[in-house]
Amino acid sequence: MTQAAYRPDVFRQLTYHDLAPAFAAGTDTPRAFLERCLETIAAREPTVQAWVATNPEGAREAADASTARWKAGRTLSPVDGMPIGIKDLIETRDMPTQMGCEAYRGNFPKRDSAMIRALRDAGAVILGKTVTTELGQGHPGPTTNPFHPRHTPGGSSSGSAAAVGARMVPAAIGTQVGGSIIRPASYCGNVALKPTQGAINRGERQGLSQSTAGVHAGSIQDMWLVAMAIAMRAGGDPGSPALFGPESPPPASKPARLIVMEAEGWALLDDASRQAFRAVLDSLRAAGVQILTRADAPAIDAFERVIADAKAVTNDLGSFETRWSQQNLIESHPDGVSQRFLNRHARGMAMTLDDYRARLLQREAMRRALAELAPLADALIAPSSPGPAPIWEGDKPGEPLAPRPTGDIAYNAATSALGVPCVTVPKMAVGGLPMGIQVIGHPHMDARTTGFARWMLEELPPAIA
Amino acid sequence: MTQAAYRPDVFRQLTYHDLAPAFAAGTDTPRAFLERCLETIAAREPTVQAWVATNPEGAREAADASTARWKAGRTLSPVDGMPIGIKDLIETRDMPTQMGCEAYRGNFPKRDSAMIRALRDAGAVILGKTVTTELGQGHPGPTTNPFHPRHTPGGSSSGSAAAVGARMVPAAIGTQVGGSIIRPASYCGNVALKPTQGAINRGERQGLSQSTAGVHAGSIQDMWLVAMAIAMRAGGDPGSPALFGPESPPPASKPARLIVMEAEGWALLDDASRQAFRAVLDSLRAAGVQILTRADAPAIDAFERVIADAKAVTNDLGSFETRWSQQNLIESHPDGVSQRFLNRHARGMAMTLDDYRARLLQREAMRRALAELAPLADALIAPSSPGPAPIWEGDKPGEPLAPRPTGDIAYNAATSALGVPCVTVPKMAVGGLPMGIQVIGHPHMDARTTGFARWMLEELPPAIA
Repeated sequence: MTQAAYRPDVFRQLTYHDLAPAFAAGTDTPRAFLERCLETIAAREPTVQAWVATNPEGAREAADASTARWKAGRTLSPVDGMPIGIKDLIETRDMPTQMGCEAYRGNFPKRDSAMIRALRDAGAVILGKTVTTELGQGHPGPTTNPFHPRHTPGGSSSGSAAAVGARMVPAAIGTQVGGSIIRPASYCGNVALKPTQGAINRGERQGLSQSTAGVHAGSIQDMWLVAMAIAMRAGGDPGSPALFGPESPPPASKPARLIVMEAEGWALLDDASRQAFRAVLDSLRAAGVQILTRADAPAIDAFERVIADAKAVTNDLGSFETRWSQQNLIESHPDGVSQRFLNRHARGMAMTLDDYRARLLQREAMRRALAELAPLADALIAPSSPGPAPIWEGDKPGEPLAPRPTGDIAYNAATSALGVPCVTVPKMAVGGLPMGIQVIGHPHMDARTTGFARWMLEELPPAIA
Repeated sequence: MTQAAYRPDVFRQLTYHDLAPAFAAGTDTPRAFLERCLETIAAREPTVQAWVATNPEGAREAADASTARWKAGRTLSPVDGMPIGIKDLIETRDMPTQMGCEAYRGNFPKRDSAMIRALRDAGAVILGKTVTTELGQGHPGPTTNPFHPRHTPGGSSSGSAAAVGARMVPAAIGTQVGGSIIRPASYCGNVALKPTQGAINRGERQGLSQSTAGVHAGSIQDMWLVAMAIAMRAGGDPGSPALFGPESPPPASKPARLIVMEAEGWALLDDASRQAFRAVLDSLRAAGVQILTRADAPAIDAFERVIADAKAVTNDLGSFETRWSQQNLIESHPDGVSQRFLNRHARGMAMTLDDYRARLLQREAMRRALAELAPLADALIAPSSPGPAPIWEGDKPGEPLAPRPTGDIAYNAATSALGVPCVTVPKMAVGGLPMGIQVIGHPHMDARTTGFARWMLEELPPAIA
């Protein structure tokens, strides 16, 4: 089942926050909302394949409890009753955590990760586990793009992005090491927040120095409410001051100046994508926002040069940091991982500690170069992916493995390595598929970055190419 | 079985590094060394109770393989064949990991933590798991002090410190959040390294922002060789550049100037301990080392004022960071944890995110205050514990729980929060029990700090009170 071509001005995402008055009045209920979600899942899941597992009975029980709280005026938070999908890298007490990996088939730790516990404490409804690429790396799962099933939904948060894009849930949790929140959100027409590094507690998943948990949603409001509901209760990663900002969604805020980030993605943009992004820049200028590029200031050019190797930095850091746990996995389950996984593991094993230290220094240099941009503009802006979702119809037997079946991290590796907040909004359509624009802030400016993104979402005309 | 009173000038710790020529020549072997360790364990374990589990068969196999490598001149590292004890918080593939906690009885994940994998790759012999207090917190295990069984060995690395102090092994791995390496080493006559925060990869144990893995040993040389063997192979925590320094032990190096750190321990020192520490200071001065105190420089006094709340900072940070995982544990095993654990958990649950942020800011202020001391002296110096090991003979039925059965972290909380390297050397004896002096460096100066500690160990007269 294929949707019509994506139109940013026509497509209506699923939202939850705007129903609060109806829930309070009893004219709608979280239980009824959940049933609508389950109907959409029943209709679209055979093609989209966003879910590894759902827990409809548990979800109905939680939704009924929430319905009672709304009626009694005793809600636990603004997300009380919101059905949420959870990327299957994250532990939930009531569903297995299989991480898209054969070696973890049936893995069922019966524990809630920090963010899941926080969401339950906030009254949210943990509806199910969404498909991830194998262990969050490159080997894809079965999920298809909700706007065209021949295309990838992106990865590694494939199911979370697709479930939101298919209007199955108003929000879903993803994680990003290279580009695993922002890129699939771009491909699936979501808004999404990849917060400042560490701003949302990753719970048991602390093994990478550059990885964030974040939120896919149909609206800026639900996105922010979910992120803040977690951070207020579970905090951030150990040692992080956690997500800063108001409990309620930041208001739309027009930036005065934005810097275009070219990164490694600029050279990869096809003509139509570049045309759409230029239309966005024109709209921004027309609205009175000053746009700066690397030609406008030596500090911007220096920043671009320093981030030009971000993909390699990101991949090497992750490969070195995970190699010991991957060794355990490969030894205990030699047939339980993909060839893509083994190839990447081999690259990590070939690194020395000095190689790793050199990559850390490169990352530090990137962060210093970004800090020098703070006086020049309010935030940075870039496409959220180097084009709309590419076609992906599986590996071909006998042919070499496709290098990036879920798309390229060329617009995400730098912001992941920088550890900065990114918010993507689905303002572009290219070839009938959605494509996001990301607003990129300085560390801990998540709320301000969200306000800018909200302004763009609400005020800019769509860009269709 | 009680040893004679501890005499720093008489007691001979177990060492391994000095046998390399004998192993190479075949006049001694790692297998024979292991058998001597097993004999000592058989003789002393009934009283000391340092071990939760040993794997003599696996150890013999590893020692035989090492013996062959030494004979063939193909050793994997300087610690090839060294029998090592592993604190039972850390996962090992061949023994359970029960963490001193009833809820984890029988827990057997069959995985090697990052540091265990590194040690095996370096040829070391993983001899067994050593007793930890419950989950590394306050509730003690059965281990007794190897120099007097009525006294605590300290905690939480109780078994690692006692096993080294009882000459059962030349080295053992510990971990420190508050004072869990340096304090038990002080009580048990070990040398020990608590490295710079993150300098040794904690593997699966990344849930605390202020926690380090470190090494207890009978000699500075074995201590350093073990730490570096791990860091070279497993690196540090994700994002850490890992332990810096040479592969071989840093040479002894006389400091020109040392600052006395009073911290929260100064007021707790009894007369004999203070007398012993003053004797050390006198010996340092006699050797030409300038000693500075808080009266000598405003920056030192400012530092002391900022670290005066380090115990509370340390406890609160850890309590907040672990509360979500503790909730999981308590819900799944309501009878599987101690009352001490529940009391501490309740304190964590009472904290807000803003409380946590305030403690993070205090810790940052401590680190800034320390940085200002760098121009004044080479390192800091302090007793490693506020006295020798206190008496501990178990909780008394019907009486309130003793507040700190494994001793007080008053000399360790600040250095844990500062994230700095500490090396303790057993140069003092107070009331017939060992007591350490710690040399405290600036971040990443682990090798230099070790060189100063080695000089003190080799050149200073013992201080007996």
